[in-house]
Amino acid sequence: MKIKSIESHQQTDVQMDGAAGVKMRMLVGHEDGAGNFHMRHFEVEPGGHTPHHNHDYEHEILILAGSGVAKTEQGDRPFSAGDALFVAANEMHQFTNTGDAPLEFICLIPAPKDCTV
Amino acid sequence: MKIKSIESHQQTDVQMDGAAGVKMRMLVGHEDGAGNFHMRHFEVEPGGHTPHHNHDYEHEILILAGSGVAKTEQGDRPFSAGDALFVAANEMHQFTNTGDAPLEFICLIPAPKDCTV
Repeated sequence: MKIKSIESHQQTDVQMDGAAGVKMRMLVGHEDGAGNFHMRHFEVEPGGHTPHHNHDYEHEILILAGSGVAKTEQGDRPFSAGDALFVAANEMHQFTNTGDAPLEFICLIPAPKDCTV
Repeated sequence: MKIKSIESHQQTDVQMDGAAGVKMRMLVGHEDGAGNFHMRHFEVEPGGHTPHHNHDYEHEILILAGSGVAKTEQGDRPFSAGDALFVAANEMHQFTNTGDAPLEFICLIPAPKDCTV
């Protein structure tokens, strides 16, 4: 069984177009033997944001710390620590840290079928 | 997009054999349209525990609050808030709250193929 603190996972800058001030840790992924879905940890600095985009897979998200605004197909919606989010496949979405502290959340996705990821 | 606090989800007692003092909330499940994997929230009272069992699917877990001990195939191992856990399919496991405060964690599983769940 793997038991490992969030902080002890390597943190890398997210280089994706449209992302600003976002860092990621892979908490449970291919290297752990997870074949169905993966747990990633994201940290967004104040004013930072994830890309405004969509894709053909869903997100399951839990906000761990901080607060922000989700740009959704139903308009801008606030969120804060303790909120659970579900983004359906193909739904446009973007998360911006509108607070003064780091925004932290986990975001789970189906395991990529491309084995190089 | 669903955005909903943990607390606003219905909480039910876990009736499974071997569980004691455990309550569950389904944060992202069938009702949200999640077809690949589901996010559940568990709250275990001090001294309470999940069943000591195994099954043919994995768990991806993040400890949100409190502390405890995992009974694993490698012996008893402590965990606390901020730890990420991966339990492989078929691996024996049990989680006991050894602290004085509620133990809270999320636990993700592949979406059950039985549509009655």
